[in-house]
Amino acid sequence: MSTLEQTLATIPRTPPQGIADAVRERWDSLTKPRGSLGRLEESIVRLAEIQNTTKPTTERRAMYVFCGEHGITEEGVSLYPSVVTREMVKNFVRGGAAINVLCRHHAIQTFVVDAGVSGPKFEGTLDRRIAEGTRNFLHGPAMSRGQALAAIESGIELAGEAAERFDITGVGEMGIGNSTSASAILCVFTGATPDEATGRGAGLDDAGLAHKCNVLTAALAKHACDAADPLAVVSAFAGFEIAMMAGFILGAAAHKLPVVIDGFISGAAFLIARAFYPAIAAHVFFGHRSAEHGHARLLETGHAPLLDLGMRLGEGTGAALAIGLLTSAVSLYREMATFAEAAVSDTNQKESTSK
Amino acid sequence: MSTLEQTLATIPRTPPQGIADAVRERWDSLTKPRGSLGRLEESIVRLAEIQNTTKPTTERRAMYVFCGEHGITEEGVSLYPSVVTREMVKNFVRGGAAINVLCRHHAIQTFVVDAGVSGPKFEGTLDRRIAEGTRNFLHGPAMSRGQALAAIESGIELAGEAAERFDITGVGEMGIGNSTSASAILCVFTGATPDEATGRGAGLDDAGLAHKCNVLTAALAKHACDAADPLAVVSAFAGFEIAMMAGFILGAAAHKLPVVIDGFISGAAFLIARAFYPAIAAHVFFGHRSAEHGHARLLETGHAPLLDLGMRLGEGTGAALAIGLLTSAVSLYREMATFAEAAVSDTNQKESTSK
Repeated sequence: MSTLEQTLATIPRTPPQGIADAVRERWDSLTKPRGSLGRLEESIVRLAEIQNTTKPTTERRAMYVFCGEHGITEEGVSLYPSVVTREMVKNFVRGGAAINVLCRHHAIQTFVVDAGVSGPKFEGTLDRRIAEGTRNFLHGPAMSRGQALAAIESGIELAGEAAERFDITGVGEMGIGNSTSASAILCVFTGATPDEATGRGAGLDDAGLAHKCNVLTAALAKHACDAADPLAVVSAFAGFEIAMMAGFILGAAAHKLPVVIDGFISGAAFLIARAFYPAIAAHVFFGHRSAEHGHARLLETGHAPLLDLGMRLGEGTGAALAIGLLTSAVSLYREMATFAEAAVSDTNQKESTSK
Repeated sequence: MSTLEQTLATIPRTPPQGIADAVRERWDSLTKPRGSLGRLEESIVRLAEIQNTTKPTTERRAMYVFCGEHGITEEGVSLYPSVVTREMVKNFVRGGAAINVLCRHHAIQTFVVDAGVSGPKFEGTLDRRIAEGTRNFLHGPAMSRGQALAAIESGIELAGEAAERFDITGVGEMGIGNSTSASAILCVFTGATPDEATGRGAGLDDAGLAHKCNVLTAALAKHACDAADPLAVVSAFAGFEIAMMAGFILGAAAHKLPVVIDGFISGAAFLIARAFYPAIAAHVFFGHRSAEHGHARLLETGHAPLLDLGMRLGEGTGAALAIGLLTSAVSLYREMATFAEAAVSDTNQKESTSK
């Protein structure tokens, strides 16, 4: 049995008995109208179910930023040149990128994962490099089936390590060209058309967008992918960082570690995880609704994201903000006074008394 | 010239020259695709314009929770009895309410303002009590014109004090019955029908909701209010906490102090402020989209709120979360590396190079 198969077999099939009811009971005992904290209350129910406890926590927080280069950049599908992936990895390691600032601000430990960057290795990253970038998937598969499995299992392993040290994690990424990869994955797993799935990425103009859509259409025609064989889809279109994130999501679910998914690219990793394990949505949070065209379609496959701020940066930035929000929700759940403690009249215990 | 008139004359008529451009230029120099932080970028532009600086800050944060009792509760328009207002003030002072938890979590100093609670005064509140609750506005005006002005000017004064000590403030409230008051204000200032304006408040059932709507309809018929005379509207329908919040919003604008408005009730205070000063929206933030029916209609009068979490608690809880978000945005704006500092290739300086 492979690590992947073992992981899939380990993910809890049903939510733990009684946790959701107990958490809702606690929420209803706190000094506020019932349900008045809306999605914050629901989020804590999910967090508790994933962690299998009535006292969920986000105290120890981590962000994994998966980085990889993409052969498809040869086709001019991105506003930025491929070297920017490498340059941004350096920026991550030095602490100057958006995700560094947000993680410092929310006390989230940051890990930069080299899943497939080219050139000399970097100090300060987790070296999980599968190869120096994927191949151009317009001409052949982005990676071999063996590399696809290796990337996924590397992600599973990272999640296992994370589960020993952290209460919640976010996943984000960096990889010039990876929105094209994510769009292809969206098309295969949801039946979206290239038009529906293609967005401007880092900021393509109309001509660039049309070109990217044409490249995607041609690539989809080249690989007659079967959505029922997710490893084939990963091999055809994924990036190493996307495959590794998919593995991380599956591994985290097996270890009862909540994962906050960032935006469009990490959403594609979610789709891969879902192809391996259809009920994976119950084990994750969606951090935010990205402005990237195609994300709306992707989000139909899960549940509503916590934030909607027109962001489209990636790196895990939306996930980091959402972890901040979940941490606020945990503090409400744990620290608010009950009606009894505060001696506040709880009309809610009776039926509505309005005349 | 009254304090109110003086305040209205002091509010800056136009945004300060050059601030928005300078802030956008800084955003565009940071290591991310242009505009990719979406509404966080826009929010910092507004914050900078309000504070009249290219280095906006939210370092010193405060929340003002305005509390008052409402005579209209005699009509059974609320799920909770009026005494809960007083009980919750005690809860605020002891630090057990949702707003206390969020303010601790986000390092926001909390002020509980007694604008019109009944009974013995509380230690630990700011005593700005106008009277021990409003009168029942089904039978006559909620307060005198003199009380309305006193409440507004008291809010202006509080904002002046806040401006000396804080960089950003939130406003929230507590007052059983005040969603009926807010609904009436919404009807007068926007032309919304009672049906459109009436919500379940703390959790009315269908019968309670229908009754509340009838009370509102009758009250609106009783007071033939002229929206062009905002003091008359305040006198007819407001609560002391709502009038004082309206004054706070105006005073803050005059002092270049950003205010984050919470939800439906503080939104009604915004409508009053807007009736006195039509361009007030440029000087505030809307914290969140409340689940209270009627808030959507109210938000049409301003700009989009930052959060949408199905919350309907009041107290300033949505504003506190939004201040947390704005503080994250400030840290991004101030701490991210520029393309030059990080030696990252900035294709954005050229036109799109996609083929």
